[in-house]
Amino acid sequence: MDISNRGQKIQPSPIRKLKPYADQAQERGIHVYFINIGQPDIPTPQPILDAFHSFDEKVLSYGPAQGFLELRQAIADYFVSYNIPLDSENVIITLGGSEAIHFSFCVVADPGNEIIIPEPFYTNYNGYASYADVKISPLTLHVEDGFRLPPAEEIEARITPKTRAILLCSPNNPTGTVYTPEELERVISIVKKHDLFLIGDEVYKEFVYDGGTHKSLLEYEEVKDRVIVVDSISKRFSSCGARIGAVVTRNKELYQSLLRFAQARLCPPTVEQKAALAAYRMGLDYFQPVKEEYERRRDVLYEGLKDIPGIVIQKPQGAFYIIVRLPVKDAEHFVLWMLRDFHFEKETVMVTPAQGFYCTPGKGKDEVRIAYVLKEQDLRRAIVVFKEGLNKYLSIFS
Amino acid sequence: MDISNRGQKIQPSPIRKLKPYADQAQERGIHVYFINIGQPDIPTPQPILDAFHSFDEKVLSYGPAQGFLELRQAIADYFVSYNIPLDSENVIITLGGSEAIHFSFCVVADPGNEIIIPEPFYTNYNGYASYADVKISPLTLHVEDGFRLPPAEEIEARITPKTRAILLCSPNNPTGTVYTPEELERVISIVKKHDLFLIGDEVYKEFVYDGGTHKSLLEYEEVKDRVIVVDSISKRFSSCGARIGAVVTRNKELYQSLLRFAQARLCPPTVEQKAALAAYRMGLDYFQPVKEEYERRRDVLYEGLKDIPGIVIQKPQGAFYIIVRLPVKDAEHFVLWMLRDFHFEKETVMVTPAQGFYCTPGKGKDEVRIAYVLKEQDLRRAIVVFKEGLNKYLSIFS
Repeated sequence: MDISNRGQKIQPSPIRKLKPYADQAQERGIHVYFINIGQPDIPTPQPILDAFHSFDEKVLSYGPAQGFLELRQAIADYFVSYNIPLDSENVIITLGGSEAIHFSFCVVADPGNEIIIPEPFYTNYNGYASYADVKISPLTLHVEDGFRLPPAEEIEARITPKTRAILLCSPNNPTGTVYTPEELERVISIVKKHDLFLIGDEVYKEFVYDGGTHKSLLEYEEVKDRVIVVDSISKRFSSCGARIGAVVTRNKELYQSLLRFAQARLCPPTVEQKAALAAYRMGLDYFQPVKEEYERRRDVLYEGLKDIPGIVIQKPQGAFYIIVRLPVKDAEHFVLWMLRDFHFEKETVMVTPAQGFYCTPGKGKDEVRIAYVLKEQDLRRAIVVFKEGLNKYLSIFS
Repeated sequence: MDISNRGQKIQPSPIRKLKPYADQAQERGIHVYFINIGQPDIPTPQPILDAFHSFDEKVLSYGPAQGFLELRQAIADYFVSYNIPLDSENVIITLGGSEAIHFSFCVVADPGNEIIIPEPFYTNYNGYASYADVKISPLTLHVEDGFRLPPAEEIEARITPKTRAILLCSPNNPTGTVYTPEELERVISIVKKHDLFLIGDEVYKEFVYDGGTHKSLLEYEEVKDRVIVVDSISKRFSSCGARIGAVVTRNKELYQSLLRFAQARLCPPTVEQKAALAAYRMGLDYFQPVKEEYERRRDVLYEGLKDIPGIVIQKPQGAFYIIVRLPVKDAEHFVLWMLRDFHFEKETVMVTPAQGFYCTPGKGKDEVRIAYVLKEQDLRRAIVVFKEGLNKYLSIFS
């Protein structure tokens, strides 16, 4: 009677692991600036909250497995407004982007198969890989060049007979990198040449800065049967607790298979789907001020950190994360010390050690991920406290 | 670039497969009595609806992976009120009972491993078995004896070196059978002897009739480390669209593994957890009139069907389903005919062919599942229409 292998090897969340130390700091009266997780502080749009308040059905009943038609149509229309040809029959509503990832892994790969993912990557891919018993084959990127994709040969070198798909997350969590059309096309050539699926995690689609726009994998007609896109309202509408995402594909056969996975779990939550529908009906204008807010924060964070002696940092182009290399030997030890042993005027900062975002052992040991999810004033203060902490840490440990 | 094996073999929902024909009947102006799916018509309790209406947070944010402490405590207290010793550290909130099943399969079994489940069984187990790449080993039960468990030797004959667990659903969907303590203890002896886990799907716990009570697998101290119980508010509080369930275990190591699966998908929906908390705070008195309502319906249905010539039927003891054998060769053909080719005074009835609830090919071909989820008056009328249909069908096809 042993726990299954996958049950034993599934990774605990490296993002949540240090949370108890932050709780203890707070109990000691220390104010903690949380820039460790991607929980935005942007208020949830009023139409979403109104949808909860005005739910007036007598029975909170099951909806369709693929989600309500109106919401699927609204999501298709949202993509159409970005000139991506979709209709409701390309969209399945999922329980957050998380389930969309899980469905995608299962529909392209059997146990023991491999999916190539550039690392550092969103740590929950690890969880779903164990859950689905799929192997992630990491393609290591580097902070020095801002985590750009390597030449085609280097990507192809990761391909084995067991490889079924490549996954690209852009705008990227945790690096903030937005892949250029040239980078996307490099990967598209590879999936065509090696007959692979291509999974796009594009949940940060709206968050591209410096006047740039997001290029979706769904825009490439030549791979329309190969592409599965993972989508979510969590960050788009500051609604992480709604658990509404979507999996999108123009491959009809894939869609039917995804639908059967969806049928197994009956349906997504009913009221949240109505809330999401209200959100999409706000139109694209909603995003502009939100994007500007994150762009300002990005600038504040980048300017605040870039002159730290020994830091390796590149300006991120999207999402609301950055990975930086610090002049420390063990970032986890530093993060822990900041929570347990340090405060500056009764304040400290929590960031995430980056090691958990890498799959290759030993990688990212001197890096941290920072999420710019605080308002400008708080972020500025967090940077001051962070630098004080780092200076003091270095004076003790180096 | 083929869809994975599991993506190809995952079963489409047999319950939902015939839905388009019902839609077409409605479009022709036929009233359809839906007694095919377990969507209760009992109004969702007001405290649940009020929780949606009074949600007043500014940001709809992530909650803890294991669910809010208050809700976990409320669920533990609910079990304690049935004299089952639990605390909040034994409970993880899941996305419906569905996710609790999926977590349970993954934590006990690796790809290729087997779980023994008495058939006919809740059809979504098939979906999760494909999803998790686990094999269901069916233990065939029979309508003639009311789907009682067979002698120990017959159960043990299903055990192979790959067997990891036995799953018991009681009160049972789709049969309505409630296992006796003697039947539970028969299986408990077997899991101890063969060192297996024991999964209990007990989501219909409150729905036990004729003055009987439900015995939970959690009550057996001797297997407290082997037992995982799947729970849900869907039927308990007529809240299928909330997607709030729970997985419960007193095995600490199992709990930690389940928690890591939970972390992979971040958290259950935030507002529904508050709604579920409000529901549990209503107390056990809420269930009595609901149970009496279902018990009356069960009696109406059983009395209405039992004298049909050639029917094989036993009075179910719980849940709100029954499986009966009809004097037809192909129940799916009959169900389809009822929707496409029949009406009685502009009305027809939809039931579910039982074949999809069996794993063994050919089993259940002449059986249907009926869910008594309509109020008494409608159910009486549905029985009249059903009998008219069956008579006419038999006059044509036999």
